[in-house]
Amino acid sequence: MSNLSTQSYKGTRDYYPEEKRLQNYIFNIWRQVVEGFGYEEYGTPLLEPLELYTAKSGEELAGEQTYTFEDRGGRQVAIRPEMTPSISRMVAAKRQELSMPARLYSIANFMRYERPQRGREREFWQLNADLFGIEGPAADAEIIELSHAAIMKFGAKQDMFKVRVNNRALVEQLMTHFLGLDVIGSPMMTRLLDRKDKIPPEVFREQAIEIFGPQAAEGLPKLAKLINTHSLNELPEQVQNTPAMYDVMQVLELLKQKGITNAEFDVTLMRGLDYYTGTVFEFFDTSPENNRALFGGGRYDGLVGLFGVEPIATVGVGMGATTMQNFLEVHGLLPQLVSRTDVYIIAIDHTATAGADALARSLRKAGVRAELDITERKIDKQIKTASKKQIPFVAFVGGEELESGIYTVKNLIESTEQKADIDRMVTIVKDHRYDGDEDAVFEV
Amino acid sequence: MSNLSTQSYKGTRDYYPEEKRLQNYIFNIWRQVVEGFGYEEYGTPLLEPLELYTAKSGEELAGEQTYTFEDRGGRQVAIRPEMTPSISRMVAAKRQELSMPARLYSIANFMRYERPQRGREREFWQLNADLFGIEGPAADAEIIELSHAAIMKFGAKQDMFKVRVNNRALVEQLMTHFLGLDVIGSPMMTRLLDRKDKIPPEVFREQAIEIFGPQAAEGLPKLAKLINTHSLNELPEQVQNTPAMYDVMQVLELLKQKGITNAEFDVTLMRGLDYYTGTVFEFFDTSPENNRALFGGGRYDGLVGLFGVEPIATVGVGMGATTMQNFLEVHGLLPQLVSRTDVYIIAIDHTATAGADALARSLRKAGVRAELDITERKIDKQIKTASKKQIPFVAFVGGEELESGIYTVKNLIESTEQKADIDRMVTIVKDHRYDGDEDAVFEV
Repeated sequence: MSNLSTQSYKGTRDYYPEEKRLQNYIFNIWRQVVEGFGYEEYGTPLLEPLELYTAKSGEELAGEQTYTFEDRGGRQVAIRPEMTPSISRMVAAKRQELSMPARLYSIANFMRYERPQRGREREFWQLNADLFGIEGPAADAEIIELSHAAIMKFGAKQDMFKVRVNNRALVEQLMTHFLGLDVIGSPMMTRLLDRKDKIPPEVFREQAIEIFGPQAAEGLPKLAKLINTHSLNELPEQVQNTPAMYDVMQVLELLKQKGITNAEFDVTLMRGLDYYTGTVFEFFDTSPENNRALFGGGRYDGLVGLFGVEPIATVGVGMGATTMQNFLEVHGLLPQLVSRTDVYIIAIDHTATAGADALARSLRKAGVRAELDITERKIDKQIKTASKKQIPFVAFVGGEELESGIYTVKNLIESTEQKADIDRMVTIVKDHRYDGDEDAVFEV
Repeated sequence: MSNLSTQSYKGTRDYYPEEKRLQNYIFNIWRQVVEGFGYEEYGTPLLEPLELYTAKSGEELAGEQTYTFEDRGGRQVAIRPEMTPSISRMVAAKRQELSMPARLYSIANFMRYERPQRGREREFWQLNADLFGIEGPAADAEIIELSHAAIMKFGAKQDMFKVRVNNRALVEQLMTHFLGLDVIGSPMMTRLLDRKDKIPPEVFREQAIEIFGPQAAEGLPKLAKLINTHSLNELPEQVQNTPAMYDVMQVLELLKQKGITNAEFDVTLMRGLDYYTGTVFEFFDTSPENNRALFGGGRYDGLVGLFGVEPIATVGVGMGATTMQNFLEVHGLLPQLVSRTDVYIIAIDHTATAGADALARSLRKAGVRAELDITERKIDKQIKTASKKQIPFVAFVGGEELESGIYTVKNLIESTEQKADIDRMVTIVKDHRYDGDEDAVFEV
């Protein structure tokens, strides 16, 4: 038999302890921030009926990008390519029992057929946070504030990124009342604007002409004017003083009150997915090396209603771990992470094995993370292992130590050494911990 | 269009915040325990090439139970049905770079086609902990000790469950040297013994006769004698004083030294999967209502070598979250879990909205998990929401409070009320937290 391949499946990553440590660092900060806003965690199944995605997610996502297959019972199923349809289904299923407003989050993996490019993987991890049951700008502003806090908590400054805000109801009005498009042309133009930065200007122009049809001569200059609109008061009179425009205004005003200085109106921001109905937003990296959208979200009030229950106002955000990692790398915000194991215990000779085992047990009882070397290799080899694993401390156990209860504790990072009894050892190693779980500071 | 169904996919569960809280409670205790032993977390892809499972997992698992399909590139893939092949692949891929011994763990979801029964789901979550690079009883005993600690940490007592220990090399010797079976009969008998408790005694007897063939007359009484062997010194002389028997003896001796009093030799324990090569063990619930195997593991030294690298001695355990939950329920060990949100902030009138928002921000800066009600509903409705969400505290914000900086904080669980400034509020709510993350106590 030929050997099995050690390669992971195309577009997926193996997370060795070092990489997993980094992923957990991102997950933990996300968790702290969203839980700081009172969001509660939920979980959804890996597989969903395919129709959940064909219903409303947009054709590309449900059609070409989703992993679908027929199960042994003849059901068409999909590996979830995104979270929004699943959480909408869950909320619809308990429409009556759930306390509203509901603030919900998840950190989960998803799969899509993607062509490999930076920050794009076939299996990827995302935070999703959604606020159900509140209409209006205050809820939209909260989701944006929370997303903003999730970046700032990693140590980012407000000049490292921008928040772009728009409103799909406003867009709809612009399409019909200002550009004069009909129910067919309007969504086509919305999608074209969504792809504006990904296609050459000529192609954009050609496709715009096609969408306008006979009215292209009047439409094109209006479209050009629209694209060059950078503030709410430059908007055409057809949408001035409409509820949708006030919505955007209020969201921006609330963000300012919350201390967010890098949010701005962007009339060209669409956020591809068909299900958005109101506010949409996108976080954008301003660094020259990573000039791209980081993540986004918006209001999708219609999705829960697709399950035959009374609709619920909903606004949410989804952000990817790999994109976040790239952002942190580019801006020099990735910390140096050592092992979570506190101390590596080494028996200095064969007779101390049982004593070393007992020491490990005592330390664990006191909440210390203690790895015990049971290989009986030479001591320098054991120290080398601890060092390679980036474990900060080593403790040595021999007959003398077991008799006196005083152990030599070596700090491998600072190359220092001290004598300590168990209680003191507990204090030494715990004091040294990088603890991502406490004293959350929001630098908004 | 007809409405979408709110049902989750067959055999899978939606985890609403209350259920997710419980799952997280289990995950967190697992994490504390395995990290207490110095195990480091890793992650593997959801999908693997199908051949990874057909190679060595046993026919049932790879064939009938696994979710397999052909991807758009024509590759045969599988949703992982277990962790062992994936982590073996990962270790093989970095055979040289990884620090040995390697202590690795993961908490992940898996899928199998299962007929619905208690504790069996098509999507299930498991802890996997594996120790790579150490041969012999000390490593086996560590994995069993760690598994034992993982149950005890939930508050279990040693009379609530048993640990059964056997050795596959010993079994092999018994099959050939004592029962006189050949290379075909031996694995068949191993599998039959594995299913002994799941089939009627007549069926077991019939199948045993078939396996023995012409030697059934001598074989059956020997098999009966073997099944009734309950200690190592009752074993037939053919296996007395063999390395395999000493292995079992030493594992049991080490467990005793570690304070484990509920471990025993069980010659009928096989642990189905084909890849085990040495020590196998199983944790068994002793309660009359849940008299069943909880989880198990063992030594599988051959798996990493299938990837064309030098083999690595390996011993590991896998335990399921739902089985653990059932165990905790039956033994009354499930704690009452409230929301992780500390405080629900209520603006008592419209003019206090911005002030309440600012208070929430200040509390979050101090590490408090604060949910802000932005619905502008009546105050009693807002309190009811907090109570229904099982949030322990409510804080009220009005003009007077904003001026004085003194807020009324209500404890909803104990129905008490007090006045406090921000600093005091931080202390009050943090003191009240159930904190699963600190002061791990191992009751071994």
